[in-house]
Amino acid sequence: MSILVVGSVFFDSLETPHGKAERALGGAATYFSVAASFFAPVRMVATVGEDFPQAEIDFLTKRGIDLSGLEHRKGRTGFWKGRYHEDMNQRDTLALDLGVFSDFEPKLSPEHSKSPYVFLANIDPQLQESVLDQLGAPGVVGCDTMNHWITGSRDQLERLLKRVGILVINDEEARLLSGERNIVRAARKLLQMGPERVLIKRGEYGVIQFSPDSVFAVPAFPLEEVFDPTGAGDTFAGGFMGEIARSGGLSESSLRRAIVYGSVMASFVVEDFGLGRLRALTQDEIDRRYRQFVSLTDIDGA
Amino acid sequence: MSILVVGSVFFDSLETPHGKAERALGGAATYFSVAASFFAPVRMVATVGEDFPQAEIDFLTKRGIDLSGLEHRKGRTGFWKGRYHEDMNQRDTLALDLGVFSDFEPKLSPEHSKSPYVFLANIDPQLQESVLDQLGAPGVVGCDTMNHWITGSRDQLERLLKRVGILVINDEEARLLSGERNIVRAARKLLQMGPERVLIKRGEYGVIQFSPDSVFAVPAFPLEEVFDPTGAGDTFAGGFMGEIARSGGLSESSLRRAIVYGSVMASFVVEDFGLGRLRALTQDEIDRRYRQFVSLTDIDGA
Repeated sequence: MSILVVGSVFFDSLETPHGKAERALGGAATYFSVAASFFAPVRMVATVGEDFPQAEIDFLTKRGIDLSGLEHRKGRTGFWKGRYHEDMNQRDTLALDLGVFSDFEPKLSPEHSKSPYVFLANIDPQLQESVLDQLGAPGVVGCDTMNHWITGSRDQLERLLKRVGILVINDEEARLLSGERNIVRAARKLLQMGPERVLIKRGEYGVIQFSPDSVFAVPAFPLEEVFDPTGAGDTFAGGFMGEIARSGGLSESSLRRAIVYGSVMASFVVEDFGLGRLRALTQDEIDRRYRQFVSLTDIDGA
Repeated sequence: MSILVVGSVFFDSLETPHGKAERALGGAATYFSVAASFFAPVRMVATVGEDFPQAEIDFLTKRGIDLSGLEHRKGRTGFWKGRYHEDMNQRDTLALDLGVFSDFEPKLSPEHSKSPYVFLANIDPQLQESVLDQLGAPGVVGCDTMNHWITGSRDQLERLLKRVGILVINDEEARLLSGERNIVRAARKLLQMGPERVLIKRGEYGVIQFSPDSVFAVPAFPLEEVFDPTGAGDTFAGGFMGEIARSGGLSESSLRRAIVYGSVMASFVVEDFGLGRLRALTQDEIDRRYRQFVSLTDIDGA
């Protein structure tokens, strides 16, 4: 079953303690789509400028991503330049040019509006809601958000959350949105705001999932080098939603496996700059790391 | 099989965002012993002053802890006063009086020197080594340490580590001792220093175990309230070593189960001030939380 994602496509100039990359393909919708494409057909709704290279169109198309919802507009593709600290949980924005993304208005084709699986990547909650308004009756809607919208557009965000099944955010955002420092209490409050499940991303410490009657925690895959954490959260969401769309299952065990697949994809993407590692990734490597995750977390032995 | 622990017995005056406790029984050897006593007979080697109350002797004895190695000396029992910040990973020491602990010299009885399971809690590595010198041929030796010894007594500590099977430290200490920021690289370096296993405690994010050929990660139990984190690490070590002594197993799966039991005990101790929660704890509660841990981490479903 195919999965629709709405979000940003950017170019990122990145500097980490391990090196640099200039104008690497990035943006939440891109990371999500490429990760999800290993599991299910993906439809990307986003906007790019005249500077967007055919080579990247070819790459995304080759990954089976339907780009009929990728709007090409007069102007520049969004651009972000950032530098990570020695502690890569910290980063500074050195430059930001929203380009054509600044007046992005997602429009769904009749075909896209029937998508059974939908992910609303981090954009203005008003736009996220406009996507929901264009949808028929999607089976599963996931969404992400960020500090900017939590503090600046809380009302719109709270309205959106009533219509979303799975909220995928990081721990800092969960605390800010709930007003609770303790992560369990934060998750309980977020569940009261609407979503049936809340997935909290904890960076190098993995992911913890809350539903009204269960908790599941999975560590991040222990890596000797993290080259570039950019896009790890969106890549997680892509693997997670992709596996849900592939299996079609929403049972507790299907969702847990999907969380592990999301973690697998995130563990790969940070091994190189931008999307570098995912461009070269094979299904075999995904399967092998999934088994390593099982062994990493299995109480009954390796 | 019985387990010998050498370390400190203190009184702690504690202030956390949730309240206060005055002169609560504490110290690494105490937390370790009480936690381990739920699994195996414990022998405690430590020192206390004239102010140590009979009621606490009775409590420890009732828990089956052999106090023949608890030296009663002229002077005061060690005392620590600390205040935790809103973020309970941060704390300030408000007062410290080592009392009789300042010239503690562990002496093992002939009976104790034959102990098959030994834990060297956080004391001067020179004293930790003097305990090893007094031992016959222990089956399993675990040890802890802290920043103070890593920076101030590195040579002695490195000598000790060559003789220790299981190193149990927190992530900050692992980074300091190894000189590596990345936790996987840190663990690899620590394994090269002698221990066959390195267990790294990550507070609210759980524990990760490294051996030369395996990695195991378990999250901390998600709690809605952490009242007092004091002694959580020592309580973890007590549950972990206690379960090893109980099962007698050193297979990968035995050690993993022991890590979960350690995590179970740590998850209880932080629910109340000092040892309060462990004083009231039942075997039934331990078993129930162990099953909750299995469900929390089981990829194949709840």
